[in-house]
This record gives sequence, C-alpha cells and structure tokens, in this order.
Amino acid sequence: MSSAAASVAAIVRAAGPHVPALLERVERRLDELAGSHGPVLGEHAGATIAAGGKRLRPLLVLLAGGPAAGRSADLVAAATAVELVHSATLVHDDVLDAAPLRRGRPTVWSHAGRELAVATGDLLFSRAFTELVATGSLAAVRTLSRAGSALAEGELRQRQDAWNAAVPVARYLERCELKTARLFEASCELGALAAAASERTVAGLGSFGRRIGLAFQLLDDVLDVSGDAARTGKHRGTDLLDGTVTLPLILARERDPRLAAVDLRAISGPDEAAELCERIEATGATAAAVERALAIVAEAKDDLAELALAGAQELALELVADSVVDRWA
Amino acid sequence: MSSAAASVAAIVRAAGPHVPALLERVERRLDELAGSHGPVLGEHAGATIAAGGKRLRPLLVLLAGGPAAGRSADLVAAATAVELVHSATLVHDDVLDAAPLRRGRPTVWSHAGRELAVATGDLLFSRAFTELVATGSLAAVRTLSRAGSALAEGELRQRQDAWNAAVPVARYLERCELKTARLFEASCELGALAAAASERTVAGLGSFGRRIGLAFQLLDDVLDVSGDAARTGKHRGTDLLDGTVTLPLILARERDPRLAAVDLRAISGPDEAAELCERIEATGATAAAVERALAIVAEAKDDLAELALAGAQELALELVADSVVDRWA
Repeated sequence: MSSAAASVAAIVRAAGPHVPALLERVERRLDELAGSHGPVLGEHAGATIAAGGKRLRPLLVLLAGGPAAGRSADLVAAATAVELVHSATLVHDDVLDAAPLRRGRPTVWSHAGRELAVATGDLLFSRAFTELVATGSLAAVRTLSRAGSALAEGELRQRQDAWNAAVPVARYLERCELKTARLFEASCELGALAAAASERTVAGLGSFGRRIGLAFQLLDDVLDVSGDAARTGKHRGTDLLDGTVTLPLILARERDPRLAAVDLRAISGPDEAAELCERIEATGATAAAVERALAIVAEAKDDLAELALAGAQELALELVADSVVDRWA
Repeated sequence: MSSAAASVAAIVRAAGPHVPALLERVERRLDELAGSHGPVLGEHAGATIAAGGKRLRPLLVLLAGGPAAGRSADLVAAATAVELVHSATLVHDDVLDAAPLRRGRPTVWSHAGRELAVATGDLLFSRAFTELVATGSLAAVRTLSRAGSALAEGELRQRQDAWNAAVPVARYLERCELKTARLFEASCELGALAAAASERTVAGLGSFGRRIGLAFQLLDDVLDVSGDAARTGKHRGTDLLDGTVTLPLILARERDPRLAAVDLRAISGPDEAAELCERIEATGATAAAVERALAIVAEAKDDLAELALAGAQELALELVADSVVDRWA
C-alpha cells in the first residue's frame, strides 16, 4: 500500500465508519453523472473523474461535516459538487494536451479535442451547481460559485504572470490561494454548512481548509523542482518550461544572483530545465519552501484546536493535514 | 437605423419606460463586472461582453418579468447572469480563433490565448451564478444551472455529429434546443420567477422563449448558407467547412441525391463551400428551413396568447418574436 493510500485509510479509521460509506456514495454519484450524458461525456469526463484519484476535496467535505446524521444526502451532494468542479478544471487544463500538430498543421483531432475538452469542462461545472442546488442551500451555492470564480481568476493570474521570474512572493501566494486554496476552503465550508454548524465553525473549518490547500499547492510546486520523474510521472522543471514561476525559483533568485539573471524563455528543453532545478535546489530554496508549507499546516492545525470539535472529527482532519505533508515532514 | 435597432426600439416603446432603465442597469453591471477582475479580464471579457450586442436574452428576462415593480434588482441580476453565461459560451467558442500557427509552430500567443479564453469563460460562468445567488432564489439558480448544462451538452453534440451529413432532422433540432433554445427558455423563466409569476406563467413564458430560441438558431443556420458575406461578416458556408451540419443541408440532401453524396471533408475552401451553398439553395431547402422557423415563431405567439398577460407585456414579447424573424417574414 502506498503511503498516500495508507494515510487515507488511517483518516477513514479515525473519522468513523460513516465516512467510507459516504465516500462510496460520492463515487457512485460521480459514475452516474459521467455515464448520464452519452458516450462522449462518459469517455472524456469519465476518464478525468476516474483519474482524479485521491478525492481529497470530497473527503474534506465529509470530514468537515462531522457525524451529521440525517444530512448525509446533502454532504454527498456537496462532496460530489466539489469533485465535479475540480474535474472541470482538470479537463480545462488539458485543453492544450491533445497532440496539436501533424505535419505542421493542426489536426482535426486536436481541434475536436480542444472543443470537447472545453465543452466537457463546462458541463461538469454546470452539473456541480445543479447537484448543489438539490441541497436547498443558497449559502452552499454562493460558496461554490465564489470558489469557482477564484479558480478561474487563479488561472488568469498564472497566465498573466507567465515567464515573469521577478514575480513577488506575495503575488505567487495569492495565485495559489485563488487556484487551489479557495476550493479546499469551500470544501470545508460546504461540509460545515451541510451539518448546520455555527458561523464560527464554518469560518474556522474554512480557514483550516484554505491553509492546507495553500500548503498542498506549495508542495506540489516544490515537487516539480525536486521530485523524481519516476514518482511524479513528469519531468523535473515542467513548470519552468511552461513559464510558470513558483516559490522555489522566486526564493532561489533572492539567494543566487546568477539565477536572478536566468531568462526562462531561453531554456531549450527538459535537460536544461532539470539542470536549472539542480541549481535552484543547491540554494536551499526548495527546503525553504517546504519549511513554509509545514508552517502553514501547523497554523491549520491551530485553527482546528480552537474549534473544540468532537475528538474523532478533529483527529481525522489532523490526519488530512498530515497527509498533505507526509512525504516532507 | 438598422432594422434590428428599430425593432428593439419598438419593443422598448411597447414595454414601457422601465425597460430601457433596467437595460441600462444591466449594461452598467456588466461593465462593472468586466472591470472588477483586473486588466486581463477587462480586456478579454470586456471585449466579448461588449461585442455581445443585441442583449436579446437580458431583454427577454426583463420583458418576461413584466412591470414587476419592487423586484427590479432581481430582474437586473437575472438579466446580467444570462448575459454572462452567453458571453462565457462566446469566449469558449473563441478558444480556437487566436492565430494558431506561426512558421508552422504553435505561437506563445495562441497558447496563451486559448488558456486565457478558457479561464475567462470559466470566470464569467462562475460570476453568473454568484450574481444570481444574490437574488435569493434557488429556483433561479436551478434554472440557470440546467441551461448551462444544456449549452455544454449542445456543444458536445455538435462535435459528436461533426462531418456527419446524414444526421437526422430530429437530432439536429435537439442540438439547437440544447445549445440555444434552453438559454432563451431560462431567460424567460428567470424573468417570470423574479416577478413571482404563477407556475403556469413561468412554464408558458419558458415555452415561448424556447421556441423563439429554436427559431433564432434555425435562421442563424440558414444565414450561413444564404446570407451575403457583407451583411453577416463571414463567408457563406463557414459551418460546412467546419463540419457543422445544419437544417438546410439536411433538407437539401433529401431533395437532391447528388447532394446526398457530397463528403464535407472533401470541400477544400471558401469557394467550394459557397458553391455548395448555391446548390443547397437551388433545392429550396433554405426556404423550407425558413418556413419551419416561421411556424415555430407562430407557435411561440400562441403560447403568449394563452397566458392572458398585460397588454403591454404581451405586445413587447410579440415584437421580440417578430424581431427574430424580421428579415425573413
């Protein structure tokens, strides 16, 4: 069993037997939805939803909901909705992935592939709202629509700041908030809302989610620089080749003037990108970025401690926080 | 004054002075939203929203709402939301329009252009829901989320049926329902909901909107075959070159066996496409498609007649129906 799978199992054990049962219902609902729009959606969306994997966001919804007896349908709907939104963004991120050229001309397939990806993402996104409306909670719909706006703004920011290695740390962190942390926050808030938690608990769990989402993104960005390709499934420095400037490079440029002078557009391929990753690591910047993520997770746990949750719920949420950093702590 | 502008003026005159005032508020709100997300959104979304032009969907929301004194904020929010959804689909349709190649390689611009278009569309879509949530009506959110799903399904269908000239009429009509008529329907329903109309009136106005949306799409498709380029701004037969099979071709294939044998993929450029358009027109198929659209608009007016609306409201909605067909009737 992989360490990630082991930690999910531990979380589920801590939270109680209702959680795997609810997660199973979320899976079934996602399957149903992927299968309910004909073969095209089934093929395209189904594969993306299935590849989604860890179901971290639905898990947060369910755990933030606590025992929530009697509100399980709302929890399942909310958990399904956040995973649909997450899947929609994955599909839209894939817009550029279909082989774009054949003999120097755009292929029909790449053309169709992009149109399909855009429409499929839109459909998943709309379905998320339809799913959530069924809970009868306007507050829930508001929460998800704001997170959806944040996601899109985060993508716009990333594009806006592309290739700009001089982007300040604060602006990088804001981008991570928008494109990742806000959906984690919304997941926790939706769970708390479905459980009719107090305003203070909704806000506290939201803050917890937002922090671990931020740490999650920071570490994901570190992995691009320091991870080994066999484990991450992609070459080191993929972000750099893409013009996406992340914390390790930002910190490394402060530490090494020669790195500050590097022009990302001049990097010609994976080998040069991997070499740049080595130089970034040599400055200690990745270690500093990891430190920062660990500190954010510690703050997230402080959020929890202030809420006086039931013991099992608090423990399960702490384990989620740990799972975000488990390969680094 | 163009005939379209003249008919909008007549509609507004018929509906009463509250309508231009509300339309103005919708414009201001759209401007505000386009300007509230920084220069990138301002540039990309702003241009698309501004190009949206006729504001047919917001107009339907406002007219379906009737006088609706006291609910004007809800009407403006709903009208803004439908236009945002419409703009989102326009932006997503543009995903492929940025110049894709330079010297045989994808340009950074086309890459960035597509990513921007996808994220911008997603943002407009999310904002539509945030806007509508402010009205406090779950029924309204449900209506829009379903229309959003329909739009995306319509796009998927279009892709699925691309290049298939043998697509049946019923399936073509279904696609038009999904990609166009359902948002017109939702527009009317949202107006009626904001005015707290009876269930029967909501359904009746929805049916009216759906029918004129369907006619609108049919005539738009006719225009691609028979319209002159100077007026439509694009070459005749653009849909054919794109593999999009519409009613004129479907009907023409039934009438002329040589047309039934045409392989759309073999059409090599605008001249051949224009020639195919001539052959389609020669069968009388475009005229038959126009007949069909006119009959649908007549049915839409029957929907209205059954609702016993106030005289000014009924007249204004009839004028909208007329404006959809005004160059054909």
